[in-house]
Amino acid sequence: MASMQDCITDCLDCHSVCLSTILHCLHKGGEHAAPDHIRLMQDCAQICIASADFMLRSSPVHQMTCRICAGVREMCAEDCTRLADGETMVLCAETCRRCAQSCSEMAAAERKAA
Amino acid sequence: MASMQDCITDCLDCHSVCLSTILHCLHKGGEHAAPDHIRLMQDCAQICIASADFMLRSSPVHQMTCRICAGVREMCAEDCTRLADGETMVLCAETCRRCAQSCSEMAAAERKAA
Amino acid sequence: MASMQDCITDCLDCHSVCLSTILHCLHKGGEHAAPDHIRLMQDCAQICIASADFMLRSSPVHQMTCRICAGVREMCAEDCTRLADGETMVLCAETCRRCAQSCSEMAAAERKAA
Amino acid sequence: MASMQDCITDCLDCHSVCLSTILHCLHKGGEHAAPDHIRLMQDCAQICIASADFMLRSSPVHQMTCRICAGVREMCAEDCTRLADGETMVLCAETCRRCAQSCSEMAAAERKAA
Repeated sequence: MASMQDCITDCLDCHSVCLSTILHCLHKGGEHAAPDHIRLMQDCAQICIASADFMLRSSPVHQMTCRICAGVREMCAEDCTRLADGETMVLCAETCRRCAQSCSEMAAAERKAA
Repeated sequence: MASMQDCITDCLDCHSVCLSTILHCLHKGGEHAAPDHIRLMQDCAQICIASADFMLRSSPVHQMTCRICAGVREMCAEDCTRLADGETMVLCAETCRRCAQSCSEMAAAERKAA
Repeated sequence: MASMQDCITDCLDCHSVCLSTILHCLHKGGEHAAPDHIRLMQDCAQICIASADFMLRSSPVHQMTCRICAGVREMCAEDCTRLADGETMVLCAETCRRCAQSCSEMAAAERKAA
Repeated sequence: MASMQDCITDCLDCHSVCLSTILHCLHKGGEHAAPDHIRLMQDCAQICIASADFMLRSSPVHQMTCRICAGVREMCAEDCTRLADGETMVLCAETCRRCAQSCSEMAAAERKAA
């Protein structure tokens, strides 16, 4: 079970990895640079920061951002796995998956607490 | 029924009004500067931008950010109404309420479309 | 001479136009989707929000963000002009140029005031 | 001499510490909740992310955001030192100072490279 601090760290890591992977994908071109894939990673990078920030402020609604986060990152992890032809994409997929997991625990914990 | 463009405009307006109202509240002090109130306006300002950006990218998951947005702004509108002792807080409450309304229509439209 | 309110509006407009133009460019492919061009528009979209937010908070250091903004947008306007083969790129170039102009006035006004 | 990766880590740490310290300051009230102090920490939190993101994208203009960053954080570190009456403020001051240092090295390195 991830602590909130772990989840914040996972979100910031995932944000960083997604942002730098976007550049990698644009350089590769082809399916990696498909608008839907780039957009999904942009969505993922942004929702990661929002989710981290809501937790850093101990916001009572952070479970809502964590729930979205978990969903977006699960999609991003799948998309990166599909395109995984080297360590950059594999790392991005793994980071997204770990982050999806801890955000989804955070969202569930909050529902119980509420 | 708000168009997506209207909703983007409402989100950016709401972001702007919340950010400048935070300063107003810190200057007033007392209940206006209560941590819970300031935090709620910070949450609101941030989720507004996230929601606008997801729509600007025509992201297929924008209905999820719009749904959160609607919830956070409804809370923010209520809190600003409670503290409404002048035109700044009234404007913030009205802007949040308008934005909550258009985001909630956007979230509902997406559910139907899906 | 642009007022601060005009400059905030220009920054938010420029943010919106850059974000949606990124998707347009990814769909076009080729030079439009070149990593350097996409990155420049991402930089532009992000510094626009930062600059708008510093002004919305009436931050005493907003002239520093405005100065960067003016530089990044001038570069972005040139790059979009180079690629301008239709109204989307022309609009993006014009929006960036207008925003560069008002930010640069804002940065200069602050230097005089300081 | 900090590497770019170190500087990104420092920026993300500084962002996190500033955001959570804002809440601490609002709870303490008095000088800690003064509008100028809260605003400075908001500025600091936002420019940290912008600076980190420009480096994560390997943006050629990241030295400009790093230079602003260094300035804002130096101010933030001084303000937190002035108010340092416990470990939260001391930690915030130290984190800002370390981040100011690595950003200022990054900005200088770029100038040499250019």
